[in-house]
Amino acid sequence: MADNKKMVEAITSRDEDFAKWYTDIVKKAELVDYSGVKGCMVIRPYGYAIWENIQADLDRRFKETGHENVYMPMFIPESLLQKEKDHVEGFAPECAWVTIGGSEKLNERLCVRPTSETLFCEHYQKIINTYRDLPKLYNQWCSVVRWEKTTRPFLRTSEFLWQEGHTMHATAEEAKEETLRMLHVYESFYKEILAIPAVIGRKTEKEKFAGAEETYTIEPMMHNGVALQGGTSHYFGDGFAKSFGITFTGKDNKQHYPHQTSWGVSTRMIGAIIMVHSDDDGLVLPPRISPVQVVIIPVAQHKEGVLDKAYELKAELTKRFRTKLDDSDHAPGWKFAEYEMKGVPVRVEIGPKDIEKGQCVVVRRDTREKYFVPLEGLSNYIAELLDTIHNDMYERARKNTEEKTFTATNFDEFVDTAKNHPGFIKAMWCGDSACEDKLKDATGGVKSRCIPFVEEHISDVCVCCGKPAKHQVYWGKQY
Amino acid sequence: MADNKKMVEAITSRDEDFAKWYTDIVKKAELVDYSGVKGCMVIRPYGYAIWENIQADLDRRFKETGHENVYMPMFIPESLLQKEKDHVEGFAPECAWVTIGGSEKLNERLCVRPTSETLFCEHYQKIINTYRDLPKLYNQWCSVVRWEKTTRPFLRTSEFLWQEGHTMHATAEEAKEETLRMLHVYESFYKEILAIPAVIGRKTEKEKFAGAEETYTIEPMMHNGVALQGGTSHYFGDGFAKSFGITFTGKDNKQHYPHQTSWGVSTRMIGAIIMVHSDDDGLVLPPRISPVQVVIIPVAQHKEGVLDKAYELKAELTKRFRTKLDDSDHAPGWKFAEYEMKGVPVRVEIGPKDIEKGQCVVVRRDTREKYFVPLEGLSNYIAELLDTIHNDMYERARKNTEEKTFTATNFDEFVDTAKNHPGFIKAMWCGDSACEDKLKDATGGVKSRCIPFVEEHISDVCVCCGKPAKHQVYWGKQY
Repeated sequence: MADNKKMVEAITSRDEDFAKWYTDIVKKAELVDYSGVKGCMVIRPYGYAIWENIQADLDRRFKETGHENVYMPMFIPESLLQKEKDHVEGFAPECAWVTIGGSEKLNERLCVRPTSETLFCEHYQKIINTYRDLPKLYNQWCSVVRWEKTTRPFLRTSEFLWQEGHTMHATAEEAKEETLRMLHVYESFYKEILAIPAVIGRKTEKEKFAGAEETYTIEPMMHNGVALQGGTSHYFGDGFAKSFGITFTGKDNKQHYPHQTSWGVSTRMIGAIIMVHSDDDGLVLPPRISPVQVVIIPVAQHKEGVLDKAYELKAELTKRFRTKLDDSDHAPGWKFAEYEMKGVPVRVEIGPKDIEKGQCVVVRRDTREKYFVPLEGLSNYIAELLDTIHNDMYERARKNTEEKTFTATNFDEFVDTAKNHPGFIKAMWCGDSACEDKLKDATGGVKSRCIPFVEEHISDVCVCCGKPAKHQVYWGKQY
Repeated sequence: MADNKKMVEAITSRDEDFAKWYTDIVKKAELVDYSGVKGCMVIRPYGYAIWENIQADLDRRFKETGHENVYMPMFIPESLLQKEKDHVEGFAPECAWVTIGGSEKLNERLCVRPTSETLFCEHYQKIINTYRDLPKLYNQWCSVVRWEKTTRPFLRTSEFLWQEGHTMHATAEEAKEETLRMLHVYESFYKEILAIPAVIGRKTEKEKFAGAEETYTIEPMMHNGVALQGGTSHYFGDGFAKSFGITFTGKDNKQHYPHQTSWGVSTRMIGAIIMVHSDDDGLVLPPRISPVQVVIIPVAQHKEGVLDKAYELKAELTKRFRTKLDDSDHAPGWKFAEYEMKGVPVRVEIGPKDIEKGQCVVVRRDTREKYFVPLEGLSNYIAELLDTIHNDMYERARKNTEEKTFTATNFDEFVDTAKNHPGFIKAMWCGDSACEDKLKDATGGVKSRCIPFVEEHISDVCVCCGKPAKHQVYWGKQY
């Protein structure tokens, strides 16, 4: 590998400077470019192709669970945003406001949607009349805007792409079920497609979404021990329904308020892929969302028969995998480094000697392991290898999360762990948000990630105040 | 059919009031809802499913012709928009401006993209360096905003969904080829998928896109003889490249400006589908983009064996078609009317007598023709029928266009035809935009649609001024 590295400008080492390593990768793997608008990014073809693969798989999961896609306007009139008090307080400070339209000052300014609960409620108010109209299971793929001061590609940008599900149900039970169902859809997606394990659970009162009764979250840990809020699912009760006057006639012939959920994941997941899996040679992509799963690189391609064989392999592998053949006039070493930087899971090298022996060289991006594989049956070999790579990537991430998860039973231990061991801390909590504030201040930013569904009994008392504990909480710094 | 109509509120007749008929359909077929923001629409699940089918097919065609998807920011700083003089003059009057972000007044106001040439150019300026970087063939699916005074769902809205291709090429020839290639992709799509014929050609100087050297257009005729600009493809020469300082080192080792194109179609196509194909009972959808291609309606579904047979049919038909079974407790007549309103191409009725005879009733939405079809081989029968329906819909639209296309050789004839015969007028033109203005004023809005690729020789002189003719032009009113 040493030879290849000389040919491409090296990126910053992950252990040396994680933040710079991250931005080096997004730039050099050609995922994004910065734009002239502060905090807005250009998602380049390679980055967007990852997003398209993410979308296709998630969209299928949403449709299988009965959801339909819709499109709502991108503008929210200020009066509409103000209809739910907690919600507007949460979002108004980070809104972008349109004040002029078609050369004229608008009578009412319009917020570029930061999230669309209010728009969905305005529509639901018109189309929900009886219990027969429920549930309404809508989803939207769109871009949203939240005016951020400090931005980082994929992780925190003023504009980002996401999906937002918004559903209405006849009963609180059904809505709560939906909230958890979609959290589990996210969990399966992270595991089965992104090869990323995560802690899931409920947010504390302090950390929940503006206007929600309950917020559930999926929290994968990045390689450096920092958490990323990877997706959320909210139960709203009937709060918005009351504010927006949404009612339905029940089977009992009486008027009821429906119960609501919303849930979303965003392009931020691409940030998680980078920070969980990648290394000092660039991106490492999980096979199931990689735009190119197999790259074929001819060696000594000017020699008779090499390119013919390479095209033949491409024709065969394309039937089952997203396959690319690079027959450009760059040297093989340059190509090796290029597709390592781009994180292509499997590289197939084919040269005159390989052809003679009826074999090729197969190299895994994740471990660099190199195999001599007979051309006969290559396609089956690669199918298995891609699954193995997926499983191994998941397992390494799981191990990293396990190794960087600690426990603390008192304040000093908590602060000491936070300082010396980046990662999650499992610790008990009394339920008081003052303790969350105190722990955050003492550690330079460690916050409650979530209350897991199955709580461990770490001790009897709150790690902060020593009063009787109510919950076990996962704590950690976040992006 | 008379019976069914009683069960649903009738819509306005197409011949009586075309505009009201149109809005009745978009509402009653549940394609859109109006929103609280003037001119912005909610695209409901049924309307959005049509858009998803359109997207899937077009996206495949774009990728087959070598294009890659990207995502650009939704905001354009005012200074960026101003870089190309003609372009900003064309779009500035209809921009929506963000002036406040995160509670603070912005130093520079941001336009919500009406189109993204400037953003693509800013990015291309950074990533195009040598001839090896060309061509760049990018496309984007997104929403854009143009502040409209008078709006109508799908046809003219302040926000709409579209795709915009933006490409850069080493030579003018290649860029011109691309411009025409994409026009023909649109033409094939209209014909093969939407069952809509169209006139294609070049726009006159007066009607071309702001900043373009040449604009090509696809102009289908609606049932009432009015044209819809159904898609455009622009050749920009190197004008934007010069304004944005985009250059590349050629094979000759010298600096050159690349040549540019852009092309787009939008949700407006759904308006065309309605206005070309639909009738007084509601929507008529072309089979290839219909969210439901076959609806199965059990008759006397409480009788033994009926629902079982219906489920069996559904399982079989779902393998090949987007199939829905309506086993709700509404009466069959109500269901017939409902799926007619929604334009489902084929209805399959199955009742006890049918089952006895080993047959079912198949009804076409477009012609109302009714067939008794053996259950054995039903799937093949329907596959053929869907193709027949597609071809017949295309042929009817073609005939309508033909019947409503007239010729005129002098001013009086032109004005008379425009007044009495809604449709296209083929007439000669001298090339002077003053004549376009005069014809428009005299006819209450007839404009040049395009100069076709194969011009007919209708006469020697301009239909307006009598000076020597340069071109044959298609003229007509437009949405």
